[in-house]
Amino acid sequence: MEETFVPFRGIKNDINGRLLCYKQDWTGGFRAGFRILAPTTYIFFASAIPVISFGEQLERNTDGVLTAVQTLASTAICGIIHSIVGGQPLLILGVAEPTVIMYTFMFNFAKQRPGLGPNLFLAWTGWVCVWTAFLLFLLAILGACSIINRFTRVAGELFGMLIAMLFMQQAIKGLVEEFRIPKRENKDLTEFIPSWRFANGMFALVLSFGLLLTALRSRKARSWRYGTGSLRGLIADYGVPLMVLVWTAISYIPAGSVPKGIPRRLFSPNPWSPGAYENWTVIKDMLNVPILYILGAFIPATMIAVLYYFDHSVASQLAQQKEFNLRKPPSFHYDLLLLGFLTLMCGLIGIPPSNGVIPQSPMHTKSLATLKHQLLRNRLVATAQQSMKKNSSLGQLYGNMQEAYQQMQTPLIYQQSSTRGLNELKESTIQLASSMGNIDAPVDETVFDVEKEIDDLLPIEVKEQRLSNFLQATAVGGCVAAMPVLRMIPTSVLWGYFAFMAIESLPGNQFWERILLLFTAPSRRYKVLEDYHATFVETVPFKTIATFTVFQTAYLLACFGITWVPIAGLLFPLLIMLLVPVRQYILPKFFKGAHLQDLDAAEYEETAAVPFNYTTTEGEVGVGGRASGAESAEILDEMVTRSRGEIRRTCSPKVTSSTATPKLIQSPRRSYSTEKAYSSPQISKLSPLSSGSGSRRGPFSPRTGEMRPSNLGISPRTSTSS
Amino acid sequence: MEETFVPFRGIKNDINGRLLCYKQDWTGGFRAGFRILAPTTYIFFASAIPVISFGEQLERNTDGVLTAVQTLASTAICGIIHSIVGGQPLLILGVAEPTVIMYTFMFNFAKQRPGLGPNLFLAWTGWVCVWTAFLLFLLAILGACSIINRFTRVAGELFGMLIAMLFMQQAIKGLVEEFRIPKRENKDLTEFIPSWRFANGMFALVLSFGLLLTALRSRKARSWRYGTGSLRGLIADYGVPLMVLVWTAISYIPAGSVPKGIPRRLFSPNPWSPGAYENWTVIKDMLNVPILYILGAFIPATMIAVLYYFDHSVASQLAQQKEFNLRKPPSFHYDLLLLGFLTLMCGLIGIPPSNGVIPQSPMHTKSLATLKHQLLRNRLVATAQQSMKKNSSLGQLYGNMQEAYQQMQTPLIYQQSSTRGLNELKESTIQLASSMGNIDAPVDETVFDVEKEIDDLLPIEVKEQRLSNFLQATAVGGCVAAMPVLRMIPTSVLWGYFAFMAIESLPGNQFWERILLLFTAPSRRYKVLEDYHATFVETVPFKTIATFTVFQTAYLLACFGITWVPIAGLLFPLLIMLLVPVRQYILPKFFKGAHLQDLDAAEYEETAAVPFNYTTTEGEVGVGGRASGAESAEILDEMVTRSRGEIRRTCSPKVTSSTATPKLIQSPRRSYSTEKAYSSPQISKLSPLSSGSGSRRGPFSPRTGEMRPSNLGISPRTSTSS
Repeated sequence: MEETFVPFRGIKNDINGRLLCYKQDWTGGFRAGFRILAPTTYIFFASAIPVISFGEQLERNTDGVLTAVQTLASTAICGIIHSIVGGQPLLILGVAEPTVIMYTFMFNFAKQRPGLGPNLFLAWTGWVCVWTAFLLFLLAILGACSIINRFTRVAGELFGMLIAMLFMQQAIKGLVEEFRIPKRENKDLTEFIPSWRFANGMFALVLSFGLLLTALRSRKARSWRYGTGSLRGLIADYGVPLMVLVWTAISYIPAGSVPKGIPRRLFSPNPWSPGAYENWTVIKDMLNVPILYILGAFIPATMIAVLYYFDHSVASQLAQQKEFNLRKPPSFHYDLLLLGFLTLMCGLIGIPPSNGVIPQSPMHTKSLATLKHQLLRNRLVATAQQSMKKNSSLGQLYGNMQEAYQQMQTPLIYQQSSTRGLNELKESTIQLASSMGNIDAPVDETVFDVEKEIDDLLPIEVKEQRLSNFLQATAVGGCVAAMPVLRMIPTSVLWGYFAFMAIESLPGNQFWERILLLFTAPSRRYKVLEDYHATFVETVPFKTIATFTVFQTAYLLACFGITWVPIAGLLFPLLIMLLVPVRQYILPKFFKGAHLQDLDAAEYEETAAVPFNYTTTEGEVGVGGRASGAESAEILDEMVTRSRGEIRRTCSPKVTSSTATPKLIQSPRRSYSTEKAYSSPQISKLSPLSSGSGSRRGPFSPRTGEMRPSNLGISPRTSTSS
Repeated sequence: MEETFVPFRGIKNDINGRLLCYKQDWTGGFRAGFRILAPTTYIFFASAIPVISFGEQLERNTDGVLTAVQTLASTAICGIIHSIVGGQPLLILGVAEPTVIMYTFMFNFAKQRPGLGPNLFLAWTGWVCVWTAFLLFLLAILGACSIINRFTRVAGELFGMLIAMLFMQQAIKGLVEEFRIPKRENKDLTEFIPSWRFANGMFALVLSFGLLLTALRSRKARSWRYGTGSLRGLIADYGVPLMVLVWTAISYIPAGSVPKGIPRRLFSPNPWSPGAYENWTVIKDMLNVPILYILGAFIPATMIAVLYYFDHSVASQLAQQKEFNLRKPPSFHYDLLLLGFLTLMCGLIGIPPSNGVIPQSPMHTKSLATLKHQLLRNRLVATAQQSMKKNSSLGQLYGNMQEAYQQMQTPLIYQQSSTRGLNELKESTIQLASSMGNIDAPVDETVFDVEKEIDDLLPIEVKEQRLSNFLQATAVGGCVAAMPVLRMIPTSVLWGYFAFMAIESLPGNQFWERILLLFTAPSRRYKVLEDYHATFVETVPFKTIATFTVFQTAYLLACFGITWVPIAGLLFPLLIMLLVPVRQYILPKFFKGAHLQDLDAAEYEETAAVPFNYTTTEGEVGVGGRASGAESAEILDEMVTRSRGEIRRTCSPKVTSSTATPKLIQSPRRSYSTEKAYSSPQISKLSPLSSGSGSRRGPFSPRTGEMRPSNLGISPRTSTSS
C-alpha cells in the first residue's frame, strides 16, 4: 500500500475496512456450524499448551512471582478482546517466548536492585508496560505499519525460523531435564532415586516421541487410504489434540507399578490457591517505584515496543499471505493501537502482556482454509450427486454445481468470483468431456469421480470470521479453571508437542526450503522442480542461492545466540529489525537486483486497504482459482504454503513491475515453471495428454507451451496498483 | 514343468542343469568384486540374528540342552555345504522357527518319559532326524517336487504370512518380557528391583522402536533427496546392519548411571565353555534309546519331513519368482535330497537341522537383483558419459551403450538378451529423440539425464552366484567364535529387528495386499489402481476378493492358533499342505474358475528344467525387459515384488492357455491393466504424451491403446511349453 505517514489515516482506513465486514465476521462464523470446532480446537491446543509451559518457565525464572495462571489469563483476556474489537480476527494473541525472555531478564535485573527487589518487580514491569503502550500508540498513530512492506521474506522467515528454533530448544531442554532432579523439588522423594529418574527419562522419551510421530501422522490423515473419509477427516481435524489425550492416557498405564511422580506432570498452582491473586492489585504498588526506575523503565520498554511492533505485524502478515486469497482487508495500524491498550491493561494488573504469535496465527488461517474448502466441497458434491441421479449431462451438472457454488460465496464478492468459478468449472468439464466423448451424454459414476473432480476445482478460500478466535481464547480462559485437569498432562507430552509445533511451522518457509536445497544432491534437484517450488529455484544460480542462504543462516544463528546472552539478549528484536535496512541497502551491493527479487520479494505485503469489495478483482480470484485449482483438501496444507513463490509472480505489483514481466518474455523456462506451478497439476488430472508437464520432461511438452499465455495474464489489480 | 514321477529323473535333470553353470556360479561372484559384500552383509544379519534368538528361545525351552551355539553351528555348516554342493545357491538355509517349535514339543514329550528324559533327548532327536532324512530321500527320489506347481499362491503366501506373524509375535513377547524378571535369572539382582525393571522396559521400547523405524527408513535411502548418491547407496545397502550397530552403541550411553544388567543383552554360553560340546557326541548314545521310541520317532519325523519338504520348496520358489528373470535353472529335487543328508548329519551330531528359510531367501535374491542392477548401471553410465564427452549423437550413444550392455551379459544367454536389450534401448532412445527433436543432434546433459535414462532402460537381472551365500554362511559360523561380541547386542534391538523382518516380508505378498484392500475406503481404491497392482484388482469383483481373503485369513489364524496347542501343534505343516487339495477341489466349488486364476494362479511354478541355455528365450528376456524397464534402483524392491500378478499374464503357460488369451480379447480394461503394469511407467518417463496411462484416466489415453498389441505378444516359450 502507499506509505502514508499522515497521523491516524492508517488507523481510519483499517477501521473503515473492517467495519464493512464486521457483521459478516460473526454471521459467517455461525453459519459454519459445528465444523468451526475443528480449527478452534486445533488452535486452542496450539496456543494453550505453549502458554502453559511458558508459564512454568516463567515461574522457575521469577521464583514463582508469575505462573501459568497469569500467562493463561493474559492470553485469554487479550485474545477475547482482540477477537471482538480487534481488526484482523485471523491473528492469534498469546504470551510468547520473547516476552518470557524479556520478563526473565527484567526480573534478574530487578531482584538485585535495592530500590526494587522481587516485591516491586511487577510494579516496575507495570511502568515498562506503560511506556511500551505509549510507544505503540505513537507507532500506530504515525502509521509506522505503512512501511510494513519493507519487512521482506528474509526478515519474516528468519523470525519464523528463530521461533521454531526456540520451540525446538525448549523441547530438547525439557527432555534432558526429565533425567535430572528439578530444582524446586525435594531431592529425597522416591521418584528421584537414580533408578526412577532414569526410568522417568526413558518414559519421557517414549511419550514425547510417541506424541510427535503420531501427531505428525495424524495431520496427514486426509491422504490415508484406510478408513472412511469422515473418519480420516476427523483424525486430520482433531488428531493432534486427540493424540495429547491418548498419550496422556498412556502415561497412566504403568501407574500401578511406579511412584506417583512418574511420569512428571504439569505443575501449576490452582488459581484459587492463596496468593495466586496477590499480583493482580499491582497497580497500587506502582507509585512506590523509585522515579529513577520509572524513567529507566523506558529502556526495556523501547525493546518490547520494537519486538511487539515487529512480532505483531509479522504474525499478522503471515496469517494473511497472498495465497490465502483473503476477501477481507487487513488492519495493521488499528491492531497495533489495540495492542497498546492491551499491553497497558496487562501491565496494570501485573500479568505479562500478549501479542500476535507465530506459528499459531498462520496455523489458524490454514485450518480455516481447510474448513472453507470442506464446506464448499460437501455442498458441491451433494449437488453433483443429485443431478447425476437425475442422469443429467455434464452440461447440466456443471450448471447445477455452478449455482451451488455461487450461493456459497460471501455476497460482497459474489459477482467476480462466481464468474471465475464458472470459467474454471467450464474449462475442466469440457476437457473432461472431450477426454471421454460426448458432453451431452449422461454422466457415469465410474468416469466422473465427483469427489475428486470437485476437489480439483475448488480455489483456496478462507472462512474469515471471528468465532473461532473468540472460542479458542475463551477456551484458554477455561484452562485457568481446568488447571486440575491440565495437571494430568505429562511434561514429556508437552515437549513432544513443542517439537511438533516447531516442525509444523517449517514447510512453506522458503528460508528452510533453501537450506534443504543446499543439502540436496545435485542429481536430485530435478525432484525439487517436479513438485511445487518457488521460482528462484529456476531463475537464480545455485551459487547465489547458496551464498544468500548461508548469510541468512549466519544471521539467524547470531539472533539465536544473542538470546543466550544475559542482558544484551534484550536486543534480539533490534537485530531482526536491523535486517530491514541491511536488506534494502547492503544486500543489493552483493546480489543482482533480479535475483534478490526472486529470493526475497516483499512477499508479506498485505492486501491494500482500498475500499473493501474492490480488493477482489477478477484477476486475483482467478489466480487464486488457478493456484489452488489443482489441490484437494489432503494437500491443501502443503499447497497454501508451497505455491507462494509463484503467486507472487502475478499478484504482487512490486514484482510484476520490476522483474516478472520482462522475464516472462526473456526466459521460456521460468515462464514455463510459473505456468506449471499453478496450472499443470490440475490439467494433468483432467487430461492425460498434458500430464507430461508435471514430469521432468515438461518443458518439451507442446501442451504446456500452449497453456503459457492463457495463464500469465497480468491481473487488473497488478497493473492498476503499481 | 511336466509331472514326472520316474525315480531319480527329477534329480538328474537338476544336476545336469546346475552343472552347466557351476563354474560361472563362482567366477560371476568374484567378478562382482567388493560390491558382493552388500547383499552378503544384509543376508548375514537377516539369517544370523533370528538364529541367535531362536537359539536363546530353544535354550529356555530345552533347559539349556540346546543353545545359540548349536543353532548357529547348524546354520553355518548346512549353509556352507549347500552353497558349495547345493543346487540353487539363492536359497538360504537356517534353523527356522518351526524347527524350534518342533524341538520344543519333542523336548516336552521326551523329558517326562522314563525311558528317555532330558539326557537321551538329543539321541532320540537323532533318530527323528534319521527317519526324517529317510523320508526326504524318498520324496526327492520319487520326484515329489514335480507337484510343486500345485503349491499355489494361496499356500505359499499363507505360509509367508504365518512366518511373519511368528516373527512379530516373537518381537512383542520379547518386549513384554523386558518388563519382567527372566526365568533363569536370580531375582535379587539390583536390575530386577521394580524401578530398574521398569527403566529397563522403557529403555527396551526406545531401543527396539528406534531400530525398527531407522532400519525401515534406511532401506529407502536410495530415494532420499539429501546426501550424495554413493552415500545413499551405502546406507541402503548396509543401513540395517549399521542400525544394529548404532543402537547397540546407543544402548551403552547411559552405561555409567545404570547397573550392568541394563539394558539386557544376548545371553549365550561361549562355545569353549565347559559342556557346550557335550551334545556333539550324541551319536554314541543313540543305541541307548529304547527300541519303542526309535520306532515312535517316525511320527514326529513325518511331521518334520512334511514341514521341510514344504518349507524348503516354498522358500526356493519364493527365491526364484518369475519377475526376477533368472537365467539359471532351479533344482528342487536335488536340493531336497541334499537337505536329507544335512538333516541326517545334524541329527547325528545333535544339533537342530536347518532348512530353506523365509523371508531370508527371497530377501537374498532381491538384494542380488539390486546388485546386478548397480553393476550394469555403473558400466552403462560410464559409457554414456564418455560418448557424450565426445559429443556424439543419440545414435552413436545408443550404439556404445549397447556394446557395453552386451559385454556385461553372462555368455550363456549372450545372443538373445543382447538383441533384446538392443531393441529396448533403440525404442526408448527413438522415443526420447522424437520427444525433443533430431536424433542425430549431439546429446546435451540437460536434456539427456544419463543416470535416469539408464535406470529406466535396465531390465531386472539377478547376480546369480554362490559367493554371497557361501560368505554369509561362513560369517554365521564366525558368530560362534564372536559370541563375546554378539553378547553386546541388547535383546531389545533383537526384538526390533524381528519386527523389521516381519514388516519387510509383507510388501509383494498379495494376500497381505488383499487384506489391505479390504480396509481401503472405496473412494480410495483408485489409488490402488494408480500404482503397481495385481490384475485381480480390476478383473475380480470386490465381493469375491473379500470372501476369498476372509477365508484365507481364517485359515491363517487356524494355522497360527494351532502352533499354540501343545502337541497338536506338530500338525501345522499338515494344515498348510491341506491347502493344496482344498484349493484344487473345494475352492472351485465356491469361486469362478477365472476369478480363482486371477486371485491364485500357480504363481510359484519354477522355470522348467529343460536344457539350460534354452530357458531364456527371446520372449522371456523380453518380458523381463519390459516388466522392469521402467524401474530405477530406488523402486526396484517394490517392483520385483509388486509386478508379479501382471508378469504371470504372459509368462506362465498354464495361465495363458486357460484364461489370459481369451480375456485379452474380451475385456479391454484388463488387457489395458496388463499392458500398463509393465510398460506404461517406462513410456510415461520417455514421452510425456502417454504418461496419462499411469493416471487413473489411463484407460482413455489413446497412447496406451496403441501400445497394447506390441506388448502383449505371447512369448515363444509360452506357446511351446504349454
